[in-house]
Amino acid sequence: MRRALELATRGPRGLNPQVGAVILGPAGEILADGWHRGAGTAHAEVDALSQLAPGAARGATAVVTLEPCNHTGRTGPCAVALLEAGIARVVYAVSDPGDASAGGAERLRAAGVDVVAGVEVDRARALIADWLAVQRLGRPLVTVKWAQSLDGRAAAADGTSKWITGPAARADVHRRRSEADAIVVGTGTLLADDPALTARRDDGSLYERQPMPVVLGQRAVPGDALVHRHPLALLHRDGENLGGESENAPSLMDELRDLGVQRVFVEGGPTIASAFLRAGLADEVLVYIAPTLIGSGTGGADRTAVRFIGVDTIAAQHRLRVTSIDRLGDDILVVAEPAPPAEGNA
Amino acid sequence: MRRALELATRGPRGLNPQVGAVILGPAGEILADGWHRGAGTAHAEVDALSQLAPGAARGATAVVTLEPCNHTGRTGPCAVALLEAGIARVVYAVSDPGDASAGGAERLRAAGVDVVAGVEVDRARALIADWLAVQRLGRPLVTVKWAQSLDGRAAAADGTSKWITGPAARADVHRRRSEADAIVVGTGTLLADDPALTARRDDGSLYERQPMPVVLGQRAVPGDALVHRHPLALLHRDGENLGGESENAPSLMDELRDLGVQRVFVEGGPTIASAFLRAGLADEVLVYIAPTLIGSGTGGADRTAVRFIGVDTIAAQHRLRVTSIDRLGDDILVVAEPAPPAEGNA
Repeated sequence: MRRALELATRGPRGLNPQVGAVILGPAGEILADGWHRGAGTAHAEVDALSQLAPGAARGATAVVTLEPCNHTGRTGPCAVALLEAGIARVVYAVSDPGDASAGGAERLRAAGVDVVAGVEVDRARALIADWLAVQRLGRPLVTVKWAQSLDGRAAAADGTSKWITGPAARADVHRRRSEADAIVVGTGTLLADDPALTARRDDGSLYERQPMPVVLGQRAVPGDALVHRHPLALLHRDGENLGGESENAPSLMDELRDLGVQRVFVEGGPTIASAFLRAGLADEVLVYIAPTLIGSGTGGADRTAVRFIGVDTIAAQHRLRVTSIDRLGDDILVVAEPAPPAEGNA
Repeated sequence: MRRALELATRGPRGLNPQVGAVILGPAGEILADGWHRGAGTAHAEVDALSQLAPGAARGATAVVTLEPCNHTGRTGPCAVALLEAGIARVVYAVSDPGDASAGGAERLRAAGVDVVAGVEVDRARALIADWLAVQRLGRPLVTVKWAQSLDGRAAAADGTSKWITGPAARADVHRRRSEADAIVVGTGTLLADDPALTARRDDGSLYERQPMPVVLGQRAVPGDALVHRHPLALLHRDGENLGGESENAPSLMDELRDLGVQRVFVEGGPTIASAFLRAGLADEVLVYIAPTLIGSGTGGADRTAVRFIGVDTIAAQHRLRVTSIDRLGDDILVVAEPAPPAEGNA
């Protein structure tokens, strides 16, 4: 199973989970192995079986990181492929959470195959945690990030703000960008800051993994915007329907999910961050706090980092559970997630 | 000196420093000891000498926690009292920082007394740190405290806020109240919350030390306000001049200093906290952060914890240095002080 897990990591993140498989002979020797290379390609079990001559897997054991599927999509059901190959025993880690694809183990057992489930389940679950979350939520996981002064301002009254947080905080943001599948900003931020929306190391070089740039808003993206030089193509949407019930057009969450996005990093600015919070689309909140006080301006003008999030009275507040607090140079990073209902809004 | 320091703690905090003194005979035996019991009473050296018969201190050593004064106030100069008693040797810890009172050591040396300074100076300084700060600043030390949501709100748009932070944060506030000499709130907070302004333990009992209650604002304090039951009498001022140059009336800081207040705890609400921050009167900032998001209200109504503090552009921000971050139950306490100019406003 460890080898199968290792093989699984060779596959890409995307619409499908990363899965690895090993076919073992009667003495426990490895006959073949394989992994899933992304939606539309062979599943890991089939990839492994394809390397064997017909009949060579008869009586063998298949070790797979995910329950073999029972579903005909762009590829046939793996349960059937294993049966047809004459596999006598199947060992897998994580059960398939899909409505359409589950039932593989049952089908194999019904055909007389010896099936063992739950081997190395923790490691296997960790490997595909984001994919499993997408299956559970029906949408990608969303992290909403913003930087603010200790008193919750994103900028001074005149709009000046650049470098409100320091280099350690910025490096942390870039590392986290590299772990996301998509990065979201509003047209306001795009027009004001012209961000590259790439994940960069301190020396300016690009991380291997880059998030897909997504810009939300009615306004046009200028032809010379830096984001056009991003290695991945820009997705520009109006952001009217982030994740609610789709009416005519699919919601942004639906669209990103169908593109294989498992993890979305919402970078703002305040309008976009507040829209995600208001829609209940924040599985994780990252608040980078600069050790500074700004307050409101002379005329009462106020550039708060969080705007209207649907709270008019304290009972409607968005209670959080703080998962970590770290000092990044002079700054503070608070990571939090929605508080479970038990200790939440009373 | 350790014994002198122990004696010093028996005196009260106030206008004068806490000082202890021990008179030693030729063999190092204790002839007498004493401490200062507050403004207008005998200084520690004189208190100790007063227990001895005339002539009994001739040739003896006086050990004092603070340099003997050289100043005739409500009591005569201690340097002269020591000379008249025939003391041959004076050992002290901290030099007198006062313009009028300093010079005692010099006067003693000029009269042929053997003077040793700086013994146990760290412990002695720590004991009277607040008093020394008052001498240096010309005003009491000010701590400005507020509670806020993670996004900097003191309340929801409709004003509801009660218990925005939890019991551990409230207990911490009460402990810190008990370490202050005065507690300041605005009439707005007084009228809204009717606070007792006492320092209480979890069981509701009063701490031994209580801060003097100070209310700022034009509005009257109701006759049945809880603050009237405070063990110390209420000081009610308009708060127009917190600490600026005094013109006609003394500033609040001058008045509190002259009342012997060394440490002021400003509890708010937002108007008062912002006024102290704006005036540059915040030696320490305590921000109790509840793990919750509130944002602004539907109509844009916004109850931020910090209002106008004189910042219209980012260069004018109040840079802080974070001294500690602690988790108090579900809440976070950030303690900070103004950043030194070197790393401050550019």
